[in-house]
Amino acid sequence: MRILLINPNTSRAMTAKIADAARGVAGPDVVVDAVCPAVGASAIESHVDEVAAAAAVVELVAADRDGPAPADAYVIACFGDPGLDAARELVDAPVVGIAEAAMHLAAVSGRHFGVVTTLSRTLGRARDLVGRYGMDRACVSLAATGIPVLDLEDTGSAAVATIERFAAGAASGGADVIVLGCAGMADLCAELTARVGVPVVDGVAAAVGMASGMVRMGLGTSKRDEYARPPRAFVSGGATPPPPSADVEVFA
Amino acid sequence: MRILLINPNTSRAMTAKIADAARGVAGPDVVVDAVCPAVGASAIESHVDEVAAAAAVVELVAADRDGPAPADAYVIACFGDPGLDAARELVDAPVVGIAEAAMHLAAVSGRHFGVVTTLSRTLGRARDLVGRYGMDRACVSLAATGIPVLDLEDTGSAAVATIERFAAGAASGGADVIVLGCAGMADLCAELTARVGVPVVDGVAAAVGMASGMVRMGLGTSKRDEYARPPRAFVSGGATPPPPSADVEVFA
Amino acid sequence: MRILLINPNTSRAMTAKIADAARGVAGPDVVVDAVCPAVGASAIESHVDEVAAAAAVVELVAADRDGPAPADAYVIACFGDPGLDAARELVDAPVVGIAEAAMHLAAVSGRHFGVVTTLSRTLGRARDLVGRYGMDRACVSLAATGIPVLDLEDTGSAAVATIERFAAGAASGGADVIVLGCAGMADLCAELTARVGVPVVDGVAAAVGMASGMVRMGLGTSKRDEYARPPRAFVSGGATPPPPSADVEVFA
Amino acid sequence: MRILLINPNTSRAMTAKIADAARGVAGPDVVVDAVCPAVGASAIESHVDEVAAAAAVVELVAADRDGPAPADAYVIACFGDPGLDAARELVDAPVVGIAEAAMHLAAVSGRHFGVVTTLSRTLGRARDLVGRYGMDRACVSLAATGIPVLDLEDTGSAAVATIERFAAGAASGGADVIVLGCAGMADLCAELTARVGVPVVDGVAAAVGMASGMVRMGLGTSKRDEYARPPRAFVSGGATPPPPSADVEVFA
Amino acid sequence: MRILLINPNTSRAMTAKIADAARGVAGPDVVVDAVCPAVGASAIESHVDEVAAAAAVVELVAADRDGPAPADAYVIACFGDPGLDAARELVDAPVVGIAEAAMHLAAVSGRHFGVVTTLSRTLGRARDLVGRYGMDRACVSLAATGIPVLDLEDTGSAAVATIERFAAGAASGGADVIVLGCAGMADLCAELTARVGVPVVDGVAAAVGMASGMVRMGLGTSKRDEYARPPRAFVSGGATPPPPSADVEVFA
Amino acid sequence: MRILLINPNTSRAMTAKIADAARGVAGPDVVVDAVCPAVGASAIESHVDEVAAAAAVVELVAADRDGPAPADAYVIACFGDPGLDAARELVDAPVVGIAEAAMHLAAVSGRHFGVVTTLSRTLGRARDLVGRYGMDRACVSLAATGIPVLDLEDTGSAAVATIERFAAGAASGGADVIVLGCAGMADLCAELTARVGVPVVDGVAAAVGMASGMVRMGLGTSKRDEYARPPRAFVSGGATPPPPSADVEVFA
Repeated sequence: MRILLINPNTSRAMTAKIADAARGVAGPDVVVDAVCPAVGASAIESHVDEVAAAAAVVELVAADRDGPAPADAYVIACFGDPGLDAARELVDAPVVGIAEAAMHLAAVSGRHFGVVTTLSRTLGRARDLVGRYGMDRACVSLAATGIPVLDLEDTGSAAVATIERFAAGAASGGADVIVLGCAGMADLCAELTARVGVPVVDGVAAAVGMASGMVRMGLGTSKRDEYARPPRAFVSGGATPPPPSADVEVFA
Repeated sequence: MRILLINPNTSRAMTAKIADAARGVAGPDVVVDAVCPAVGASAIESHVDEVAAAAAVVELVAADRDGPAPADAYVIACFGDPGLDAARELVDAPVVGIAEAAMHLAAVSGRHFGVVTTLSRTLGRARDLVGRYGMDRACVSLAATGIPVLDLEDTGSAAVATIERFAAGAASGGADVIVLGCAGMADLCAELTARVGVPVVDGVAAAVGMASGMVRMGLGTSKRDEYARPPRAFVSGGATPPPPSADVEVFA
Repeated sequence: MRILLINPNTSRAMTAKIADAARGVAGPDVVVDAVCPAVGASAIESHVDEVAAAAAVVELVAADRDGPAPADAYVIACFGDPGLDAARELVDAPVVGIAEAAMHLAAVSGRHFGVVTTLSRTLGRARDLVGRYGMDRACVSLAATGIPVLDLEDTGSAAVATIERFAAGAASGGADVIVLGCAGMADLCAELTARVGVPVVDGVAAAVGMASGMVRMGLGTSKRDEYARPPRAFVSGGATPPPPSADVEVFA
Repeated sequence: MRILLINPNTSRAMTAKIADAARGVAGPDVVVDAVCPAVGASAIESHVDEVAAAAAVVELVAADRDGPAPADAYVIACFGDPGLDAARELVDAPVVGIAEAAMHLAAVSGRHFGVVTTLSRTLGRARDLVGRYGMDRACVSLAATGIPVLDLEDTGSAAVATIERFAAGAASGGADVIVLGCAGMADLCAELTARVGVPVVDGVAAAVGMASGMVRMGLGTSKRDEYARPPRAFVSGGATPPPPSADVEVFA
Repeated sequence: MRILLINPNTSRAMTAKIADAARGVAGPDVVVDAVCPAVGASAIESHVDEVAAAAAVVELVAADRDGPAPADAYVIACFGDPGLDAARELVDAPVVGIAEAAMHLAAVSGRHFGVVTTLSRTLGRARDLVGRYGMDRACVSLAATGIPVLDLEDTGSAAVATIERFAAGAASGGADVIVLGCAGMADLCAELTARVGVPVVDGVAAAVGMASGMVRMGLGTSKRDEYARPPRAFVSGGATPPPPSADVEVFA
Repeated sequence: MRILLINPNTSRAMTAKIADAARGVAGPDVVVDAVCPAVGASAIESHVDEVAAAAAVVELVAADRDGPAPADAYVIACFGDPGLDAARELVDAPVVGIAEAAMHLAAVSGRHFGVVTTLSRTLGRARDLVGRYGMDRACVSLAATGIPVLDLEDTGSAAVATIERFAAGAASGGADVIVLGCAGMADLCAELTARVGVPVVDGVAAAVGMASGMVRMGLGTSKRDEYARPPRAFVSGGATPPPPSADVEVFA
């Protein structure tokens, strides 16, 4: 089977890193491809970035679906799970977000988990997802390390040490399991597990595991009503806003 | 004060209708302008449409903010409240979604309300918003009439009668107040109130009322952390997907 | 339009102060009147006081309704929102509590808010209201300053400084917005916003804004079932308990 | 020990009936007295009535506390549990509401219960109490029979048959236990249990059982903070509203 | 009436202590018996112990039910309430768990309670019970003292002092009432109440009070559906696992 | 890798059927073994049966762990997930319940799911698990077909048709996905998906997918605190209760 990883930011280095992490944990019957948009946000660190990321996910999933060999499953490799509902409308195959997958597996690994993520301004989105996935009881902490996403492109010891510190704090505060709150942390998972002493979950690996399990058992996205094919193709105004005279009519 | 209504679909007829409804309930000190995107979804009826709508909201709010006379408040005139969090990052002024405003005022008008909306596939999004705004107890029903959004451009008797039927059903099922689940229903509010016998809330009017009250008391959007200015401007791939060779790198 | 503010304690100085605060933020088409009971609790600082306050609200709303020029909307100017449900039974006009209004607008101004109030013994009531209004996710802190209500009649620097300290603590603990938990703090709102650096919401101003918006859009209290006119007029035993022989029959 | 039952409506016939029901299930070491107010609401069927009932509870508990032989526990014999928090401030002894007691015992008797009460307009209050007591999962139905409270003074076959019908409906809809939603139904409990075939809980009996158990184990009302003695005695405007010139100052 | 206390661990000393505590608070019409299993866990301090405890409860309740004079009510005297649902299937009489009873009465004694228990590894189970009994709002803290259950067999000053310290911490953190999280603490309740200054609830006493109240009012376990007699008698593999060849078939 | 399926009832036919279903969806690198107890409940259809099932799970997991080649993951193949917490204490490997796994994957496949299970008396347990796993929003219906578990040993057309009818009812009532509420239905999953037209999830397949994904990514059970090795081995009284004189001491 073929799984397509979608990194909705424009960092090719991070996309390659995520693909490596996914391949390391995929079963022998799984091929992992990875894509990222050519134009878009360089990192997903705000709600405005999330909107750009959602647009990129929609465009990349639709392009793959309409290509010669559509994937058997799609993984959205950004912790905000941008465009998840929209992508589910586009395909019959399973679509799995990495926040979603990480939380579901963390809840099986232990009673309570803590999320360790990048910038504090993204915590609101993370908390929304905790609620959406029914993890209000399971998730006992959300912590921001202050590390910008792109500092994770080339992970140096500083980032690992900082993440370890927050992860250890979460564990001593009641988290049985740590969830890494950024796809860019995927390569740090094994080292952090060893250092912190409790299981550490990378969402990319979790999503690949869930998605491949779903493909093997023939479980895709329900096309009943909400996730049925959408009534029209995605069209958006584009990167350069057109001049107001043409684009925006003011009804004053 | 000046309030900018943002209709994120491309229907100019609907934008004009919404603007009229808003002006009818605005205070004497309020000027209402309305805009819609030149390129985008013709109606917001799916999660894919929601992504396009969010992109339109971001672009239109940023354009107004950077224009000669930015608005004192922004109203997102689409019941999915697309792009609400992102718009709040962009400005210091209040940003009010019509679903949000309708639910807050409905909860003051009566104990329980019911939402009557367009297509059943949009109910998932509506339910998410009910949860986000803390209305799980207040909202006792969500009903889809099956009326497509664009059938509301020119409201004929058929649409009113259908909406009335669902609203009356909600009232007899325990809803003290009816919330109209589409900006395109704004002009029907008074007639439906008279027909159904319980208060009917149009989100456009509700949002204008909340936003103008916030402006008068000097209450804008908190810029602390989550809604602080975002780290980069909005850039998205555009309406026409670039060719795969340029846009999408496959890390196979 | 005419809005009647009801201060359910007997402090005329505080009633005048609240009226001034309300008039400062009312639209040009709004007349604000304010009343307080002649007999009752001098401050609302306990559940026993809340019962007296609810009785005062019922009596004052009924008296206004039966007077020559009933108000177009009623605001209950006490943070416990005493008598809110009962007042809604009495009139067709909107009835807005200041806790309710402050929380609804705070939730539009930012993601999370904190309440800063007077005595710790009132926190239970405040928490009940947080739950009733669906604000369990939005409200991240409730803090008591220890300032008695009547110390707020003539606000000196000590009270402002104390409230500022608690508000700043709430902001640094995750509150994007501060809600003032006592009508007697209404005149401090602007100064506190400036000092603390995040929006501060006074419920009196918030309620006037919501109520006037509701009047302009023709939205009153739903009279369906729960808030229909009550089956009998309010009668209570009065300030001086009658002698047991007459008033209380013991069935021993 | 002595338990004082407080019926907050003015019906002496109902007070006597409630006292009889309580005595039938009290332990051999329990004396049950019952009181009702001389002036007040003849039945508690609206939020306005609830305010009068709360005032009556406060006055009657305070009078008993200040009398020669204060009770060892107080039971508020009205299903809205009016004045419960206020009464807890007044005494060190346990204060138990009949809705509260009925729900706690119903949750021990079976997994799910249904409430069968009087008028539909009281369901909002009942639902509030379900939430307050943490019974959102346990309570699976709330049904109003349409029987006015005072029709229960002299229970005829019509009322029993109607209640039985609603109770049977609740049981077939998933209720393992039926909670009677009015103190005036206390004498029907045994007959209804026999007829419906599932346990039927009368709150008066439940409250006497809980209260006497608490007295025996030395468990009273916590006086920490919220329920500490209130800062001032209860004073309210009284049954006859004073003339506006004296009572109500309008700050216009 | 006769109440049977079931201590599901094998400590006869603790069983005797629990029985004494129960008798001290039982009404004059109540006979209290107590049993414990001959074979099983010596203390209930893990989920594995909980499984053994549930098996013991099932066997002891069934044995009493089939004996010459079945009890009128059963109390499960272990804070995990092991086997509660299963025991309810076995008898028509009330079955009350001590965690359940303690939480229900604590919620009547004050607004918020804190639980003080033995080992931290049992907190997950305690939190589950808080959720099951609807106490998420009422329970504000769960604290583990680190005291092993069997150290409570002979209570020395060290245990009391440690529990007092945690109880005082809970009270200063917002708990109006303390719930003792182990049947083995039953004899310390009065002394702790005196030392800590807020009500302290022992679940054994609470359960005896609730159970005897239920018996007096004729309220047993609902036999509708879920708690109807089970389809087969309890049979389990026993203390010594049989050899794999006979007992376990591997379908490899 | 090797996964051990534990069927906690004594039906060897059902154990073989479950093993077949699991093998059909396991990856090429997965070996599936299956066991069931020699002594215990023939079907798990009551809370008493659940206690026996939990004891069987504990004994079978411990036996495998202490055997020559412990499994890499354990699946509890009974929809009540009996003994799940206890099994997690016993091993470092992942332990996955089939109810848990089915609900997690159903929530990824669609927005809302419905459970279709065997006897109505088991719905209480199913609802508890829905709450425990955070699925209160995702799960929109729980339906009992009335089919006893052992009727599923040899699935005839009657059972399939009945299950299809309930599944179709759930789908038309809002379920995007159907969860089969009994391990004995595992072989019907594909046929039901085809018949009902929405995804149908068998928990055995789901658990094998989740467990094998966890093994590949090195994610086991957190051993922090709650799931650390238990303080003593499992000992229970056994199938034949010892005579009262030896086993049960009555402290009368």
